[in-house]
Amino acid sequence: MPTAYLDNNATTRCDPRVVEAMMPYFSEQFGNASSMHEFGAKVGDAVSKARKQLQALIGAPFDHEIIYTSGGTESDNMAILSALETQRGRDEIVTSAVEHPAVLSLVAHLEKTERAKVHIIPVDSAGRLDMEAYRKALSPKTAIVSIMWANNETGTIFPVEQLARMAHQVGALFHTDAVQAVGKLPINLAESEIDMLSLSGHKLHGPKGIGALFVRKGVRSRPLIRGGHQERGRRAGTENVPGIVGLGKAAELAAEYMQEEQTRVAALRDWLERSLLQAIPNSFVTGDVENRLPNTTNIAFEYIEGEAILLLMNREGIAASSGSACTSGSLEPSHVLRAMNVPYTAAHGAIRFSFSRENSEGDVEQVIAAMPGIIEKLRDMSPFWRERENASSAEFNPTYA
Amino acid sequence: MPTAYLDNNATTRCDPRVVEAMMPYFSEQFGNASSMHEFGAKVGDAVSKARKQLQALIGAPFDHEIIYTSGGTESDNMAILSALETQRGRDEIVTSAVEHPAVLSLVAHLEKTERAKVHIIPVDSAGRLDMEAYRKALSPKTAIVSIMWANNETGTIFPVEQLARMAHQVGALFHTDAVQAVGKLPINLAESEIDMLSLSGHKLHGPKGIGALFVRKGVRSRPLIRGGHQERGRRAGTENVPGIVGLGKAAELAAEYMQEEQTRVAALRDWLERSLLQAIPNSFVTGDVENRLPNTTNIAFEYIEGEAILLLMNREGIAASSGSACTSGSLEPSHVLRAMNVPYTAAHGAIRFSFSRENSEGDVEQVIAAMPGIIEKLRDMSPFWRERENASSAEFNPTYA
Repeated sequence: MPTAYLDNNATTRCDPRVVEAMMPYFSEQFGNASSMHEFGAKVGDAVSKARKQLQALIGAPFDHEIIYTSGGTESDNMAILSALETQRGRDEIVTSAVEHPAVLSLVAHLEKTERAKVHIIPVDSAGRLDMEAYRKALSPKTAIVSIMWANNETGTIFPVEQLARMAHQVGALFHTDAVQAVGKLPINLAESEIDMLSLSGHKLHGPKGIGALFVRKGVRSRPLIRGGHQERGRRAGTENVPGIVGLGKAAELAAEYMQEEQTRVAALRDWLERSLLQAIPNSFVTGDVENRLPNTTNIAFEYIEGEAILLLMNREGIAASSGSACTSGSLEPSHVLRAMNVPYTAAHGAIRFSFSRENSEGDVEQVIAAMPGIIEKLRDMSPFWRERENASSAEFNPTYA
Repeated sequence: MPTAYLDNNATTRCDPRVVEAMMPYFSEQFGNASSMHEFGAKVGDAVSKARKQLQALIGAPFDHEIIYTSGGTESDNMAILSALETQRGRDEIVTSAVEHPAVLSLVAHLEKTERAKVHIIPVDSAGRLDMEAYRKALSPKTAIVSIMWANNETGTIFPVEQLARMAHQVGALFHTDAVQAVGKLPINLAESEIDMLSLSGHKLHGPKGIGALFVRKGVRSRPLIRGGHQERGRRAGTENVPGIVGLGKAAELAAEYMQEEQTRVAALRDWLERSLLQAIPNSFVTGDVENRLPNTTNIAFEYIEGEAILLLMNREGIAASSGSACTSGSLEPSHVLRAMNVPYTAAHGAIRFSFSRENSEGDVEQVIAAMPGIIEKLRDMSPFWRERENASSAEFNPTYA
C-alpha cells in the first residue's frame, strides 16, 4: 500500500460510501433489472435513481441521454463507430494527437481498414490544439470530431465548446472523452453544443467496470453491443446494477466535493509543483499551466528515466506514473509528450502527479521530502546527466531516429 | 424480496463469499492493474489468480485463452464480429433459431447491413437442432457457427462437440454461448473442438458486469473494444478488478458445487415439475426433457397468460419468468417457444422455473402449494379456458395471423 497515492488519473480509490451504496445490490436486491417480477422492478428503480444522480453531475437535460457502458473506452468506441454509421455520406474523423488510446487506437484501425479517413490535429509545446489545423480539417465529409475535454497526462483543458460549435458549422457530430474532466470540472451539458460525452466510474471514486456515454436527445446513435433491449435498445447486456448504483453515488459525491477539488486539491498540487521545481534543477512542468485540471501536474526531470524514478518512489511508498497506465510497459516516452515536442532528454523523465480529494498535506510533504534525493541519486548514475553539456537527444535515446 | 427465487437463469444471487473476495479491491487494493508501481502490480496478481480459477472451471488449456469482457452479450458480439474479420473470404454465419438475443439481434443486424449472410437453423418441437438443416447450411463460405451450449428458456442442451466437428470440416470457426451451461455442466475445453466460448459472471453467483470470452490458442481474434493494451491487446479498457476477482471466486465455488448441481438441484427441479404436472391439468413441459440443464424446467399452462401468472406468483413471493428477462416487456410468446412450434394457447402461458444451489425444499413446497390455485383462478377468468373445446390458436392470440 502506498502511503502517498498520487496516481488518481490512472484510477481512484472507490469511496467507501460508494461501496456501501453498492452492497445491497450484490446479494440482497440482486434481481435482473429487466425482469417482470417486482423483485426485478425494484432493482430497476435503483438504476433510474443512479441515472438521475449522474444526470445532475453533468447537467444533462434528460436522464435518458445517459447510456451505461462498461467504461470510458467502450464509450469512446461507441461514440465514434456510431457516428460513422449514422452520418451517411461522411467518412472522416477529426481528432487530436494527444487523445487517449481508446480513441487513437480505434481511429488508427479504422484508417488502416479503410473505413474512415482520419485527421490527427497536432498540439503546440504546451499541449494546446492547433486551431488553424483544426479549422482546415473540418469539412462536409467530417462525420465526427472526437477531442478530449482534458488530457490525462498533462491536465491540459481543451476548448470543447468552441470546438463543438465549429464542428456543427460543417454538420459534424462532436464527441468529447471527458473521463478526466467529469468530477474535476463543473460540466453543464444543458448549455452546451456537445453531442456525445464519455465518462468513467473509476476516475471519480466510483467502481471500475462501469461508465457512461451521454448522447444528446435527437442525436442518432447505433449500439456497439447488440442483444437485449436494455438501455432503450442502445446497449445490450444485463445491467451492471451494483456498478450503476456505485457510479450514481460517486456522481453525487463528486458534485458535493467539486468546490474542494477546485480549491484545496488545486492548492496541494500547486504546493507540490512549486516545491519540486524549486528543489530540483533541470525540471519543468509540461502542458498548459494556465489552463489545466486542478489535480494534475506533469513534471519532467531531465536526463533520467521515468521508470527508474517510479521504482525509487515506489520504495518510498509514493505512487505516481509516467505516461498513462494504459500504455505502460513501453519504454518510449508517452505519445502525448512526443506530440508536444518535449525533448527526449526530458520526456523520458516525466512524472505525472495526480491528486484527489483524498490527498492530504502529509502526502505532499512526503513527496517533497523524497523526490530531490531520488532525482539526485539517479542523475549521479546517469552518463547523460554528467555529460549533459554535450549530450544530444539522439544519444540519450538510441531508438530515436 | 421473494421468499422463493426460481429465476436463476435470469440472474443469480451474488454469493456472499464472492462479495467478500471482491471487497479489498474497491477501497484498499484499488490500483490500476496496468500501472507500473508495485501497488498496481499486486492488483495484477489478483487478476491472474482469478484467470486461473476460471480456467480450471472450464478446463481451458491455457489461462491466456480467457479474455475478460463486460458480460455474455459482449462476449457473443466479439466472437461473431471477430470471426467475420479474421475469416477472409467467408461471410456466412450459421446459428440457431433459439439463440439468445445477444446472437440473434447481432446477426439480424449483420444481415440487414449486408455484412453477412445468415443461416438460422430451425429446431423441432422439443427444441432440438435440425441436424440435416445444419449440415446443409455449412459450406466453405461459413465464417463462424454460433450455437448455444444450453438454452436459457428450456434448458435444452445442444450437441456442441458434434456441431464443432462438423463446422471444422468446412473450415468454419465454432463459437458457443455457454452462459447457461458454465457452472451447471462439467466443461473441459482441453478435450474439445470448440474455438470460442462465452460466459457470464452473474449467471453463476458472480457479479454482474463481468464475463469472459474463451478464445482457443491459435485462433485469431480481433478486439471489439479498442484502446489500451489490456488483455494482451484483445480487450481494451481498465480491468474491472473487483469484477474479475469475483468471477474467479464464483468459478471456484461453481466447481465445488458442480456435483450438487447435478444431484440435489436436479432433484428439486424434478420434484417441482412432477408435482405441478400432476396437480394442474392441461400443463406440459417444453424442451428436451431427456437432455437439459439440471436446474431448469419450462412448463406451459394452457389457455392463460404468463404475465398474469407471474403477477399472482409475485404476490405469493415467488419469482420466476416467462421468456427471458432480456426480451421481457413484450407480450408475444418467446421466440424460443415459437421456434419450437409450441401452440400459442400454451406458449403464452409458459413459465420458466430455474433453480440454483441456493434453493431449498421449502422453495419447492411453497411453489407446489401456490401454483394450482393461481392457475385455477386465472383459468376461471379466461374465456379461452371455458371455450377450450372450440378455441383455436388464432382466436386466442389476436395478433397471430
